[in-house]
Amino acid sequence: MADPTANGACKVVLAGSIAKSLLCEVYDGLQKLGRQPRLHGFLANQDPAARMYADWTAKTCKENGFDFTLREVDREDLEDEIRVANQDDKVDGTISILPCTPLAIIKILEHLQIYNNFLDYGKRLFGRRITVINRSEVVGRPLAALLANDGAEVYSVDVTGVQQFSRGSGLRKQKHEVRDMDGWGLRQCLPVSEVVISGVPRDEYKVPTDLIREGAVCINLSSGKNFNPDVKEKASIYVPAIGKVTIVILLRNLLRLAEA
Amino acid sequence: MADPTANGACKVVLAGSIAKSLLCEVYDGLQKLGRQPRLHGFLANQDPAARMYADWTAKTCKENGFDFTLREVDREDLEDEIRVANQDDKVDGTISILPCTPLAIIKILEHLQIYNNFLDYGKRLFGRRITVINRSEVVGRPLAALLANDGAEVYSVDVTGVQQFSRGSGLRKQKHEVRDMDGWGLRQCLPVSEVVISGVPRDEYKVPTDLIREGAVCINLSSGKNFNPDVKEKASIYVPAIGKVTIVILLRNLLRLAEA
Repeated sequence: MADPTANGACKVVLAGSIAKSLLCEVYDGLQKLGRQPRLHGFLANQDPAARMYADWTAKTCKENGFDFTLREVDREDLEDEIRVANQDDKVDGTISILPCTPLAIIKILEHLQIYNNFLDYGKRLFGRRITVINRSEVVGRPLAALLANDGAEVYSVDVTGVQQFSRGSGLRKQKHEVRDMDGWGLRQCLPVSEVVISGVPRDEYKVPTDLIREGAVCINLSSGKNFNPDVKEKASIYVPAIGKVTIVILLRNLLRLAEA
Repeated sequence: MADPTANGACKVVLAGSIAKSLLCEVYDGLQKLGRQPRLHGFLANQDPAARMYADWTAKTCKENGFDFTLREVDREDLEDEIRVANQDDKVDGTISILPCTPLAIIKILEHLQIYNNFLDYGKRLFGRRITVINRSEVVGRPLAALLANDGAEVYSVDVTGVQQFSRGSGLRKQKHEVRDMDGWGLRQCLPVSEVVISGVPRDEYKVPTDLIREGAVCINLSSGKNFNPDVKEKASIYVPAIGKVTIVILLRNLLRLAEA
């Protein structure tokens, strides 16, 4: 028989429930706009994950009253194609298929009250240590920068090692600085981090649960499952996927362009 | 010239601003009650701090429409005196002069959003490590127990050493357990604690700022100043005194007795 108290303390939060409140805002805006916002997407590579994201964007746009056109283009034609779409009055926004992930993570951390609204804007993550496993130019690095600018001490981890993104002692610096943490790995980052965000694009990759600190908030942004099921025995909050929030952020951005 | 960025990140929160919202609730209750609640205080020792607290209670009661009578009694007569007052219908509540400090600290931590309302009741401090310097039977110990029961891992510190109050990994236990942390001192507790609460009743006692972690929330409940001024260069929030909240908690408790 399963132990009824196991996993009892961990709150599993599905992205759909976070997306819901953001989606209400989008619906209100759509009604006021009174027409269908038009998004052009450009797919310029053969990456199956990008194709999946494109298909999913198309489906979500359609379901929510947005017009989405996907065009497959050669990488060398991409810049010209975007320029043409930008000059077309009938097109509200363009997207080369890249996720709106960093902003989605911020919205999720706000929803989970990890941002402390009692503190002033720009300092609401002061005192938080956050590990971000992924330092890609489109997701992990801008995410680490956003979190550090809001006051967190961020450990950005990839296969080459660990970098610390921080505004320094007492948040004395206005913008974050990056420094290499020689000799550091997950063994140093995870036990001191209240928030762990993992975005390794491989289902086989797992964050070692034994290194995660008691009561941490764990968020998986990978299409694979980067956390083992036993994370629920350690975490206070576990968000197993974030896609539904990411897509609402895309719709919201597009709506703002259409309203402008 | 003072460095304009120094202390910039630390929010100094005066107890008066926290007491204000609680006091509104008390005023509403008083108006509905339509009469003056009556409190009897018993002072059974010669401690000058207790006398100060008694005078201050009298002053605050008077200012806020409560009736307060203070009686100095011998310690051996105290139990009989309280029994007599309890049987007197005209007396709403009695207080031997002891502060309502533990509950005041909880209210302050709620106000500062250290309690995460996104989590379920009883788990809202899960993932928080809190050092409480003071393990007296009337303040430090019940405070550590309350915080641990709400999900925190508490390090209770006094001259005899450190005890951990905790509900265990994954909050598996319903009630907290206490264990001795052999070989531990402030050097082990402070660098890992997001919240530091100090209540050492001597002005000379100072929490070593260099051991406090970056962005910690620091609360002084002593009538002395247990934190050095440079705490503001490390802390995200600093509450230099809590008396005004404590006294409102007393009024609120008394009002509830009067309403019953």
